[in-house]
Amino acid sequence: MIFASDNTGPAHPRVMQAVMAANEDYKLPYGNDDVTEAAVKGVRDLFEAPEADVQFVPTGTAANALALAVLAKPWDAVFCHRIAHVEEDECGAPEFYSGAKLVLVEGDEARIDPDALEDAIQTCLGRGVHGAQPGPVTLTNITEAGTAYSLDQMADVIAVAKRHGLPVHLDGARFANACAALGCTPAEMSWKLGVDAVSFGGTKNGCLGVEAVVCFDPAKARELTLRRKRAGHLWSKTRYLSAQMGAYVADGLWLEMAEAANARGAELAAGLRNMPGAVIHHEVAANIVFASLPRAAHQRAFKAGARYGVTGDIDSGAPEALLRCRLVCDWSFDPAQIDKALALWAG
Amino acid sequence: MIFASDNTGPAHPRVMQAVMAANEDYKLPYGNDDVTEAAVKGVRDLFEAPEADVQFVPTGTAANALALAVLAKPWDAVFCHRIAHVEEDECGAPEFYSGAKLVLVEGDEARIDPDALEDAIQTCLGRGVHGAQPGPVTLTNITEAGTAYSLDQMADVIAVAKRHGLPVHLDGARFANACAALGCTPAEMSWKLGVDAVSFGGTKNGCLGVEAVVCFDPAKARELTLRRKRAGHLWSKTRYLSAQMGAYVADGLWLEMAEAANARGAELAAGLRNMPGAVIHHEVAANIVFASLPRAAHQRAFKAGARYGVTGDIDSGAPEALLRCRLVCDWSFDPAQIDKALALWAG
Amino acid sequence: MIFASDNTGPAHPRVMQAVMAANEDYKLPYGNDDVTEAAVKGVRDLFEAPEADVQFVPTGTAANALALAVLAKPWDAVFCHRIAHVEEDECGAPEFYSGAKLVLVEGDEARIDPDALEDAIQTCLGRGVHGAQPGPVTLTNITEAGTAYSLDQMADVIAVAKRHGLPVHLDGARFANACAALGCTPAEMSWKLGVDAVSFGGTKNGCLGVEAVVCFDPAKARELTLRRKRAGHLWSKTRYLSAQMGAYVADGLWLEMAEAANARGAELAAGLRNMPGAVIHHEVAANIVFASLPRAAHQRAFKAGARYGVTGDIDSGAPEALLRCRLVCDWSFDPAQIDKALALWAG
Amino acid sequence: MIFASDNTGPAHPRVMQAVMAANEDYKLPYGNDDVTEAAVKGVRDLFEAPEADVQFVPTGTAANALALAVLAKPWDAVFCHRIAHVEEDECGAPEFYSGAKLVLVEGDEARIDPDALEDAIQTCLGRGVHGAQPGPVTLTNITEAGTAYSLDQMADVIAVAKRHGLPVHLDGARFANACAALGCTPAEMSWKLGVDAVSFGGTKNGCLGVEAVVCFDPAKARELTLRRKRAGHLWSKTRYLSAQMGAYVADGLWLEMAEAANARGAELAAGLRNMPGAVIHHEVAANIVFASLPRAAHQRAFKAGARYGVTGDIDSGAPEALLRCRLVCDWSFDPAQIDKALALWAG
Repeated sequence: MIFASDNTGPAHPRVMQAVMAANEDYKLPYGNDDVTEAAVKGVRDLFEAPEADVQFVPTGTAANALALAVLAKPWDAVFCHRIAHVEEDECGAPEFYSGAKLVLVEGDEARIDPDALEDAIQTCLGRGVHGAQPGPVTLTNITEAGTAYSLDQMADVIAVAKRHGLPVHLDGARFANACAALGCTPAEMSWKLGVDAVSFGGTKNGCLGVEAVVCFDPAKARELTLRRKRAGHLWSKTRYLSAQMGAYVADGLWLEMAEAANARGAELAAGLRNMPGAVIHHEVAANIVFASLPRAAHQRAFKAGARYGVTGDIDSGAPEALLRCRLVCDWSFDPAQIDKALALWAG
Repeated sequence: MIFASDNTGPAHPRVMQAVMAANEDYKLPYGNDDVTEAAVKGVRDLFEAPEADVQFVPTGTAANALALAVLAKPWDAVFCHRIAHVEEDECGAPEFYSGAKLVLVEGDEARIDPDALEDAIQTCLGRGVHGAQPGPVTLTNITEAGTAYSLDQMADVIAVAKRHGLPVHLDGARFANACAALGCTPAEMSWKLGVDAVSFGGTKNGCLGVEAVVCFDPAKARELTLRRKRAGHLWSKTRYLSAQMGAYVADGLWLEMAEAANARGAELAAGLRNMPGAVIHHEVAANIVFASLPRAAHQRAFKAGARYGVTGDIDSGAPEALLRCRLVCDWSFDPAQIDKALALWAG
Repeated sequence: MIFASDNTGPAHPRVMQAVMAANEDYKLPYGNDDVTEAAVKGVRDLFEAPEADVQFVPTGTAANALALAVLAKPWDAVFCHRIAHVEEDECGAPEFYSGAKLVLVEGDEARIDPDALEDAIQTCLGRGVHGAQPGPVTLTNITEAGTAYSLDQMADVIAVAKRHGLPVHLDGARFANACAALGCTPAEMSWKLGVDAVSFGGTKNGCLGVEAVVCFDPAKARELTLRRKRAGHLWSKTRYLSAQMGAYVADGLWLEMAEAANARGAELAAGLRNMPGAVIHHEVAANIVFASLPRAAHQRAFKAGARYGVTGDIDSGAPEALLRCRLVCDWSFDPAQIDKALALWAG
Repeated sequence: MIFASDNTGPAHPRVMQAVMAANEDYKLPYGNDDVTEAAVKGVRDLFEAPEADVQFVPTGTAANALALAVLAKPWDAVFCHRIAHVEEDECGAPEFYSGAKLVLVEGDEARIDPDALEDAIQTCLGRGVHGAQPGPVTLTNITEAGTAYSLDQMADVIAVAKRHGLPVHLDGARFANACAALGCTPAEMSWKLGVDAVSFGGTKNGCLGVEAVVCFDPAKARELTLRRKRAGHLWSKTRYLSAQMGAYVADGLWLEMAEAANARGAELAAGLRNMPGAVIHHEVAANIVFASLPRAAHQRAFKAGARYGVTGDIDSGAPEALLRCRLVCDWSFDPAQIDKALALWAG
């Protein structure tokens, strides 16, 4: 019952086996090896993008920061949702890598509102040389609120960017969960909509630590290569990164794990919806549920070993007071654990 | 016969097993797990430095850049040897992380000459506010030429730094090989000499990809933590980094592997010294040999599958012309491969 | 009738004379001259801060960016009002110099609300290592809305900063206008309240182009010196910057000019308040007035040569439609020009 | 007898008058004024480059750093002479603005040796992604040693850069002195040779503080504009910068002053060449003389009020010992002062 995040669980056995297999033999360093070649091809095939530049890094923060650095000029504004991961959880990495400035855009359910984006761009334009210049727009799907953009909703945001000639980045830390939720292909959720670069996440979905920066414009490859090296993210033994990604995209493993995680999220949400006194806060599109539960419910669950983020003091206060929590399901969750948690909360 | 680098070989089975073992169970992210706790303790114990701040990153470039960023101000000069890895092979990462400027110091056998260092510092001082200010001194042991600083030689360089109140960093990508070569302890080669921070390498010595930044001043811990995060090097699943380092420092594995690699280097050097027409270029202290061999010798070796760096064109030109090469031995080398290579070169 | 900004008018004759006088004789460069020494002393005396570090730069953007770079760490949040000049009008200079991230705080009349500041700090704290760390708070007096913080209002904001151990910067591009408005001394509006560094403006108040960065902690002097040089703001012929500031702080010229400008602002506001159809938008504390006037009023004024910023299209649309404008009065304004403008607007 | 630098003397009366004249009337800020328009046109006319982007900043460090930031990528090497001003005297400003790394090239008389430049570029290329990438070449004419590149010598260096497709910057802090020395036009010393951007200096040649960044590729204008603003170098009252430059390029004043300064340099050199015991160290091409003189000679001169840079202790030691000095002549020097100094040194 560890709902703290989708980075608390184990890597998938097939991912681990691929890492073991990559440990055989001598291989040239810095990505000049067959494991990397295969993984790059696997990602390109998955995205139906044979020309895309694909580079692996071990963290989502690195992937986002690199992708934005390639898309933005140092004097640009990067438009993101007010609660985007790049804004709240990356300690300034996007700014450090790119020099650019994040400009926060409002929108319900953690989705950028197209009109609010248009307003933000107009505000920038109105400042001329005195303000940051309009630069990349970055979306996140699955969002930080656990909701999803539909493809149409993404298209509406991207249309605003494209109208102003701005590049678009997709933070896909939970890209697989979004594809599973929407029933679309990676291509449909990225370049077919006009997305220029994706952070394609593996870490939160059954890998040890790997994300692919996928740039659909191959002209960016050299810059991305140099920025990755300069940031200390070019592994001499790249094969251990690549092996994870190779296994992840092979035989639909990425989607299989995301579907499992989303199914657990749905079960959790269904259980909470039926529970008197529980309140669900956002649309539940994938594997994340925000809910408020009575303090006593949290106390019972924690006493039995559950772990997850709660806003407020679990230990003292009125037992019936509602405390908000964030529950995240991993690909590896046993459905019985969901039932057990629901039973504990219900009391 | 892959002498290209000590990053071409496999990770040690005990390192791989530790990674597998870390894959059990749910663990809190971002280093708040028992695997990380144990690995940090292991490194502290190894360095006899119970207060040291220890943080793991996956590349040597990241380790060096982070350590120097913590020791340097943006307007500082970082003094390094002319052929230091930070200067030649990190694509500006130390400058990117720190803002500081590398100032190159001469010295035989890739060792900083203490007098040349004093001169470089005096030159800086003479420029007042107009030039970069004297900042950290960074040494590398084993050096990029495959030579070693003796402890006394390190002490002589460090004495110059300390006379001016400057911090000292040790690039220890091959720290284990240096300890093996000198027969000293990690403490003797670091804080006991006045070293303030070490990049303690695992990647080139049997790990998948892990280096520890070891800061002996615990007051630097917070800054290092934030700089690591901001550079995208805080892993959500830190346990997979930590597990490698935990196994590496357990039961002397680090030293055992370094001794093996150094032994192969010594065998290689001995064989080349006895080979008519071969010239060895530097003192061979550890697992790296620079040598010049006739073109024909390289041709025979490459035809048989050997791989290593050669300066010049192997394929065309006078067969007797000497071409310089760099040969690096891995912990995992089979001595028979050394013999085979020597036989091929000898013709 | 040029109300576009307080940077459109001439420098004061006494400032010009001081620049001429500094042109006599040979003087050592980089601020090692008697003109600079006198100007530094003049600023220290004005602030009753004999130990303060005082450095001159030619723009307010440079002054703010330098001051914040000295107060902030690269991973810090800098808290400013949503419409602060550092946020809207400096094209990312504060971020470029400091590496830090601006975090926007709400508040009526362009004044930071103390409770909103507390919330913003708490939000930062709640993110731990994942978000930017709480750093300097920067206030602006006179604000961008033309309003003033009272000393008590400043104290309330500063109290929040100090409760968390955060440094405080005052953007004083219109510092003199604020002192004139509040009837307080420079010391009362700065270090006596807990302000750590001030951008003390001269450019908008009768100088050619000079601002003093005043740091009350003399320990910051060296860092400020080096950052100024590194940013290209150390003048070889510093005397021409210093001469302006020397004249500005001598014999109360700074205050005399600010009082004149504020008086014009008051006359303008009084006239508009009496004008049917005109709406004034903010408290008018000094020399800036935001107002809405009928399109026809703007058309009459522009036709007669008036110039100022208007939001919307003056040329076409309903004559009675209200268009918002920003009117700024210079120290040098002839009161007759105010009357003339009022008459034109009134029709 | 102030030979300390060419930044110790007064500005030319015509420059001062232009600044006074610019103080009349109200003018739009940020360079949208007629004084700026005229100065930009004046510089374009002087360079016979009607499309060039011309922007004014108050220091040579800012001009160099901006120009290089526009020409270099953050991961580039900037090739400069070992004793270039950008390397020794700008406290890392070029690196701060551009992110790039300075790579030092040897060459006699402070002139980049074309073969050494070729070697440095080849070394970079040989490192692939691991090292800095070949970027701009920056030359200085008049050099830091007081020597001049002939146009042919410049062409030889530039040919190396162009062979590799690298942009070329000219640090022209003493551009006028070089034109005067070579008898060439600004166009002949810049774009006609393949120079892409010039720092065209005014400060050391009779202005208060102004340099023009001249970019011959107008496509760089927007980036330069934004970088200038972001660095705090866009003046609200740009007219006071522009007025200086306008007067400087009008009616040949720039050349007239440089010729005067060079004539003084020649007189000084001639006198020293005839002086027993004096040694001149470099070719004297313009207004800078490096010489060694007996300590006693320095003592006599300093006692009589002379000021200039001396390496070593003037006050104590053998009177006959030679001490090296750097003597710089200003446009404003009275030839009688030269004679007086020569007489004092001669004893």
